[in-house]
Amino acid sequence: MNLYGDSRSGNCYKIKLLAALLDIRLVWIGIDILAGDTHNDDFLGRNPNGKIPLLELDDGQFLAESNAILNYLAEGTDWLPSDRLARAQVLQWQFFEQYSHEPYIAVARFISLYLGLPEDRRAEYESRKAGGYRALDVMERQLSQSRWLVGDSPTIADISLYAYTHVAHEGGFELENYPAIRAWLARISSLPGHVPIGDDSLSHPQ
Amino acid sequence: MNLYGDSRSGNCYKIKLLAALLDIRLVWIGIDILAGDTHNDDFLGRNPNGKIPLLELDDGQFLAESNAILNYLAEGTDWLPSDRLARAQVLQWQFFEQYSHEPYIAVARFISLYLGLPEDRRAEYESRKAGGYRALDVMERQLSQSRWLVGDSPTIADISLYAYTHVAHEGGFELENYPAIRAWLARISSLPGHVPIGDDSLSHPQ
Ligand SMILES: N[C@@H](CCC(=O)N[C@@H](CS)C(=O)NCC(=O)O)C(=O)O
Ligand SMILES: N[C@@H](CCC(=O)N[C@@H](CS)C(=O)NCC(=O)O)C(=O)O
Repeated sequence: MNLYGDSRSGNCYKIKLLAALLDIRLVWIGIDILAGDTHNDDFLGRNPNGKIPLLELDDGQFLAESNAILNYLAEGTDWLPSDRLARAQVLQWQFFEQYSHEPYIAVARFISLYLGLPEDRRAEYESRKAGGYRALDVMERQLSQSRWLVGDSPTIADISLYAYTHVAHEGGFELENYPAIRAWLARISSLPGHVPIGDDSLSHPQ
Repeated sequence: MNLYGDSRSGNCYKIKLLAALLDIRLVWIGIDILAGDTHNDDFLGRNPNGKIPLLELDDGQFLAESNAILNYLAEGTDWLPSDRLARAQVLQWQFFEQYSHEPYIAVARFISLYLGLPEDRRAEYESRKAGGYRALDVMERQLSQSRWLVGDSPTIADISLYAYTHVAHEGGFELENYPAIRAWLARISSLPGHVPIGDDSLSHPQ
């Protein structure tokens, strides 16, 4: 299987991290978002929505959306429970991530880290930060009651939310007031097989 | 099971529509978003993220996020395939809905229909409309190749995307150039058991 991804992207890192934890062999195909690689005709033929990560299966079919890819790869493993309600709770956190977390924390990080916080986006940046802290509040509440987001072992819900939470400081977020989140981040980063964000190598280079 | 919802919300309508199509009995508990009902302490105790729809199971547990609720309710029915890749494709469309469709089409509708398109939000409204048309382009491309978004029968992916697409005109969207979407909307609205958005009654009143 091939994964089209940009090493700086938390959405792409979700897949890289799960693949490493599960020892799944993926070939990483580097895409440079800032250079517009997701907008050329070749790429749009693979994913008409023009976004990465994008998984290419061995039969040539494509699957987009980071969280859909996680569900696909984790099926049948401990990272995706089989119980009906637990599965729905995993999805609840993943939809929370895409709707209430990523658009604030990842976008604040993008504006500040990649665009250098230009003056004409400062107001937007501040409002993204406010939304990001609201999402962190919701996570802190859960993680002060349980070690993992769903059930009592790590699932792909934890991976989805780890991706941008662990680099939230790069977007200007302070985690001082979030002790449960900090303890959870440390638990994830010490899982056997954990790999860092930010380089284009996968656990199994081609 | 109880469903906390606002009858004007497309996210809540997704659940109402699936429940009607599957003949699932849900008790509708009316919530007025504009009156701030999702922000009082009672409601935040049920869903710390302060959003509807919210499903209350018979044992008192809560499940949030419209698409997680759809997956929970559809499990084991024809509306959610059992094949691993098909399930992931359903999720792909649902994450697309939450990330690339709803924030544009639902929010444009909200600004125009509920807020009356105030002058100070016109620039935002126009940019939401542009994003909404990009999402419609992606859907049109798929629906000109297949009758349903995934496989050859309707799934909860169709329900998720129907919810705000069928009221997109209320946000100022023109569907003239989207014949495949219009035919698909008509197919969904003529499914046996289909119910309209916009009133607080469920198929099975208590
Ligand atoms: N909902 C998508 C979001 C993916 C996304 O926004 N990817 C960014 C990189 S982090 C991208 O491809 N941006 C290029 C673009 O939108 O043009 C997912 O979870 O995979
Ligand atoms: N991702 C959520 C979005 C839900 C959502 O935004 N609900 C709106 C009504 S359509 C709401 O509760 N708004 C009140 C608020 O955010 O304060 C889902 O799919 O359920």
